[in-house]
Amino acid sequence: MSRFIDRLDETARGNRSLLGVNLDPWGPSMPIDDIAAFNRAIIDATHDLVCVYKPNSAFYEAAGLDGLRALQDTVEAAHAKNIPVILDAKRGDIGNTSVAYAKAAFEVWGADALTVSPYMGGDSLEPFLAYEDRGVFVLTRTSNPGAADIEELIVQSPDGPRPLYEQVAIAAAGWNTRGNVGLVVGATAPDELARVRGLASAMPILVPGIGTQGGDIAASVRSGVDANGRRVVIAVGRQVLYASKGTGYAQAARAEAERLREVINAELDAMGVAWS
Amino acid sequence: MSRFIDRLDETARGNRSLLGVNLDPWGPSMPIDDIAAFNRAIIDATHDLVCVYKPNSAFYEAAGLDGLRALQDTVEAAHAKNIPVILDAKRGDIGNTSVAYAKAAFEVWGADALTVSPYMGGDSLEPFLAYEDRGVFVLTRTSNPGAADIEELIVQSPDGPRPLYEQVAIAAAGWNTRGNVGLVVGATAPDELARVRGLASAMPILVPGIGTQGGDIAASVRSGVDANGRRVVIAVGRQVLYASKGTGYAQAARAEAERLREVINAELDAMGVAWS
Repeated sequence: MSRFIDRLDETARGNRSLLGVNLDPWGPSMPIDDIAAFNRAIIDATHDLVCVYKPNSAFYEAAGLDGLRALQDTVEAAHAKNIPVILDAKRGDIGNTSVAYAKAAFEVWGADALTVSPYMGGDSLEPFLAYEDRGVFVLTRTSNPGAADIEELIVQSPDGPRPLYEQVAIAAAGWNTRGNVGLVVGATAPDELARVRGLASAMPILVPGIGTQGGDIAASVRSGVDANGRRVVIAVGRQVLYASKGTGYAQAARAEAERLREVINAELDAMGVAWS
Repeated sequence: MSRFIDRLDETARGNRSLLGVNLDPWGPSMPIDDIAAFNRAIIDATHDLVCVYKPNSAFYEAAGLDGLRALQDTVEAAHAKNIPVILDAKRGDIGNTSVAYAKAAFEVWGADALTVSPYMGGDSLEPFLAYEDRGVFVLTRTSNPGAADIEELIVQSPDGPRPLYEQVAIAAAGWNTRGNVGLVVGATAPDELARVRGLASAMPILVPGIGTQGGDIAASVRSGVDANGRRVVIAVGRQVLYASKGTGYAQAARAEAERLREVINAELDAMGVAWS
């Protein structure tokens, strides 16, 4: 299999899209009860508008064994449309426990990439990184107010004091010996996103937190893209998934995904890095 | 239901034991193939010698839907013997995603307590803490060499520079408004364990890393217990589970658990805090 980053680049170019759709089935918001059927309808309606799908494991686990069966179905449905899948699971452990998590994410659920937590350090992530054709997105600076508690603590670094999340970005660049590491930076902090991009010139950055959480698309695109105007994933969830609760929910999701892709592309255009 | 800490204290006192057994089914080491049957045999053989069981979610996830069904069976088997269960899953996310993880851990899999990652800050843990009768163990200083990468970075704190893991312990004490927070500190670092105990006088501390990882039981007991010689869980895995690969594996596990309980109790005795 080709590298994850190549599959992501190719899908983005093919669909002219830096939009990722979070497949987060949240019972009270869903127009139908069947998670797998809901996701399949969303994928059928939006697969030519996105560069990636991002299911968050929590929502499937909360639905128990049926939920996890739906996760497998969802990954298969995305792959049937040639769209890579980032499993958002924020995993991390040590030794053979990380080996088991990597096996679960990449072999059991079939994800192309996984989000992980950096807290336990580089050796805790090595078993994930050993899957050279998969992507590993390291939590760096998240979109929630509590990011200030730990991620923004000022740490001593060889270059003087800096926020912990910057040190994580630097460490992650060091862990990227196989070219399969990415970062997660929330859309609510465009200045921090720009600083992280400065520390990780070519790594893909996953940017959640658009919409309900208050993140701004244009600012995220401007702060997050690499020198070529690429390698950022603007991840949107509820705004697309729950655009309508009526029978036309899939078409409403498509319309919203189309609109969001255009907002992103308008910003790329303004920056002079439109799709060729 | 009573609080988790009360159930833990009561089980420890009843069994005169600070020993926790990690239920980590690792295929190549297992004497039989059936995860649920293996765990049930271990629980049947050791439940009067432990204060808690700690299954690590990774090993069940790696075995797919059958593995997660075995996790449910395992929690039920522990509860049938009145032993509380800490699900070691190192979860953490934000908003309704943490709500979903908490539901999965506490309602779907039925755990009494869960390990979580502090990286995303206090608000990321609030949905777990809202389950007042369950325990939430915050990763503080882990047992792996990579602990140096992030956990031991020196951060600026109101009291001057200190390692990040100490700041996490202080933050966790602040998150403990409902009396349901614990900490995770690896056995490979007894000096750090003692410092964390100094910052969290009454909170339970889960101490993995004994045995294969090189942690010393006596040092962990001495550094980890509270002023009454309690509230530490010495978590042992492979050494107990895989004491024998023969048909007598459950009895071999029992013999090893009995020996480990005595090593712990000998240290409590030497410290003058033996079980009354």
